[in-house]
Amino acid sequence: MRWSGVITMTTDFGHKGPFAAVMRGVILSRNPDAHVIDLAHDIPPQWPPEAGFWISRAYRYFPCGTIHLAIVDPGVGTERDILVVEHDDHVFIAPDNGLLAPLLDAADSPNLWQLDLDRLSSLNLGKPSDTFHGRDIFAPIAAEFAAGRLSLTAVGKPVTDWIPGWLDDPEVAAKRVTGTIITIDAFGNLISNIDASLIKGFREPVAHIAGHQIPMLSTYGRAKPGELLALINSFDVVEIAKSEGSAADGIGSERGAPLVIKDGYST
Amino acid sequence: MRWSGVITMTTDFGHKGPFAAVMRGVILSRNPDAHVIDLAHDIPPQWPPEAGFWISRAYRYFPCGTIHLAIVDPGVGTERDILVVEHDDHVFIAPDNGLLAPLLDAADSPNLWQLDLDRLSSLNLGKPSDTFHGRDIFAPIAAEFAAGRLSLTAVGKPVTDWIPGWLDDPEVAAKRVTGTIITIDAFGNLISNIDASLIKGFREPVAHIAGHQIPMLSTYGRAKPGELLALINSFDVVEIAKSEGSAADGIGSERGAPLVIKDGYST
Amino acid sequence: MRWSGVITMTTDFGHKGPFAAVMRGVILSRNPDAHVIDLAHDIPPQWPPEAGFWISRAYRYFPCGTIHLAIVDPGVGTERDILVVEHDDHVFIAPDNGLLAPLLDAADSPNLWQLDLDRLSSLNLGKPSDTFHGRDIFAPIAAEFAAGRLSLTAVGKPVTDWIPGWLDDPEVAAKRVTGTIITIDAFGNLISNIDASLIKGFREPVAHIAGHQIPMLSTYGRAKPGELLALINSFDVVEIAKSEGSAADGIGSERGAPLVIKDGYST
Repeated sequence: MRWSGVITMTTDFGHKGPFAAVMRGVILSRNPDAHVIDLAHDIPPQWPPEAGFWISRAYRYFPCGTIHLAIVDPGVGTERDILVVEHDDHVFIAPDNGLLAPLLDAADSPNLWQLDLDRLSSLNLGKPSDTFHGRDIFAPIAAEFAAGRLSLTAVGKPVTDWIPGWLDDPEVAAKRVTGTIITIDAFGNLISNIDASLIKGFREPVAHIAGHQIPMLSTYGRAKPGELLALINSFDVVEIAKSEGSAADGIGSERGAPLVIKDGYST
Repeated sequence: MRWSGVITMTTDFGHKGPFAAVMRGVILSRNPDAHVIDLAHDIPPQWPPEAGFWISRAYRYFPCGTIHLAIVDPGVGTERDILVVEHDDHVFIAPDNGLLAPLLDAADSPNLWQLDLDRLSSLNLGKPSDTFHGRDIFAPIAAEFAAGRLSLTAVGKPVTDWIPGWLDDPEVAAKRVTGTIITIDAFGNLISNIDASLIKGFREPVAHIAGHQIPMLSTYGRAKPGELLALINSFDVVEIAKSEGSAADGIGSERGAPLVIKDGYST
Repeated sequence: MRWSGVITMTTDFGHKGPFAAVMRGVILSRNPDAHVIDLAHDIPPQWPPEAGFWISRAYRYFPCGTIHLAIVDPGVGTERDILVVEHDDHVFIAPDNGLLAPLLDAADSPNLWQLDLDRLSSLNLGKPSDTFHGRDIFAPIAAEFAAGRLSLTAVGKPVTDWIPGWLDDPEVAAKRVTGTIITIDAFGNLISNIDASLIKGFREPVAHIAGHQIPMLSTYGRAKPGELLALINSFDVVEIAKSEGSAADGIGSERGAPLVIKDGYST
């Protein structure tokens, strides 16, 4: 692995308090040349699926050799494992709680290791706290990787399994795909886990959600102000939007709601 | 242009999701030495005037040779143009939707170019998405500028016009200036577009807003706790504040509300 | 002092507007190699105790030679002083309004100087605004320190006093410690100022808050879903949490509420 020096952080820490900042501090204390980027900190508390969704969709926009830390970790301090994953010239570190399933389920032949602190005594991590492994384990290990002082194969034993994701994959039938709203962005756009490839054969894709039937257009500005539209967004998944407004307010749907794309309108 | 390597981002993306982060990733993938700064991401969705206001007031605190990306872009994916502007040793890239008008209207002789992707095929931008030009166009072009591999004159044809701003400039009459509340900060201070220079001849400037007449003081601590005050803030515009409180809560005014400064109290 | 080049910012600016960004711009204009980190910007408006709490608990995770700027400054532009503090190989700059008391009260022999702008004319700070000393004073001075062009002893006269903190220190009695909830994090955890050392002799520590008696456990995952627990958190203070939920919602307590730890349950 040729490390880029870039390390991203995806967490549910929000923006109150110094939690992400002290992870940066720990990384810089070991590796002053690291470049730490906040990927997202507004993941809903203790809900790994959104973290995994965004990481699987966003990692490829970072330089090869980037390390992606994901810390949505309801089991911190209990017996859950920590996975280190190498895939597509990127490295991912996350609790083994289903978070990385969206990435791993789609990966061709990822390499996984189960982190074993007993093998890492030379790093002088000290005794980690029971509640903040992001600071005490993830950050220093990322710093050592990025500094070229730690190899992937040294962190623990290779494994081939992972805890499954918390959400079902989209269900594909003839002329019908059923998925889930994963997240809602600052504009009120409802973002689903339905990949563009799943509906590419549809002649007239129509989104069905909460009683609405919504046509698919190419961009927000193609709908009249106030109209709902569906589109393939910039991360290649189906999104429900409202021109010059908030689809979330208009539809009343929330994270976790089902979304169905059919080929044509229902009558 | 001597580039500083600094690139700022002003958007309405908010803090949910990896939108600003992937712009950073794209920039660093092309230019590992770039230094990307979040100027503001809490611009109200699809409201360019606040973005233009802050950029025009804030850019001068960054090093000369800084590139300022502004992405409040309701027309993304439609036929709107993208402007590249050189002014006062800084460079600005924004959709041509009125966003940059606060800067351009006040600029002496800015240089403007209309971005033409057909001239930039050597950059290998790929086909941009219809909904995220920040990532697919703005970010890589800024990275190439900052790396010294792209010159301003190469991006498109020079132009001299721009879409006007969405808000009127302050109206100046004898002993009376009428402006607009542009934004409200985290303290509840109401920040207007009335520049200090417009009232510098006033002997006793008094702010009139929502039925209140408010004296002008030099700083927050000069008013008694709970009292409203007007002041010239640190960005040289008139601001309405409440000592140890929130003027926005106290007055009930919102973004877009009119603010009048008169020379003296009304009776 | 061997400077690390790292500068942290702790403010009550929130995330609206370019306030933290222009501080970064000012720092980079003077010192392009500085590495500026947001420690926290969501301190409640004009409430120094939380800023001081987090700085005193978080600074040690940053490299030695880091400069910590703290700007929660209701008295900006009035006669309040600015303190420069050297402690434990870190430097702190804050208004002398009680903010740094949590750090200074616990420090063994900190070095303090009272900032005197008259001695710093060679820095060409210009006339500072009355309302944004973070940008006009704190940022340039930090930049000059980190660049190695300014020494601590040059900034003003040494002092040995500081304005006391706004909150009482925890009250310690036999088998009973009374403290205060300082802040609530994104998970709804209530974080107090009771240091682990104050209760280490307790055989059965029990947290008493708002009519609840809550047992002390080692980590979140040790409680049943929906149960309240107390724990020593990763910053070594007592915290009240709710497994898979928000303690703040469940208890109804707020910042400033009293928290009592007793050795054993009350009957």
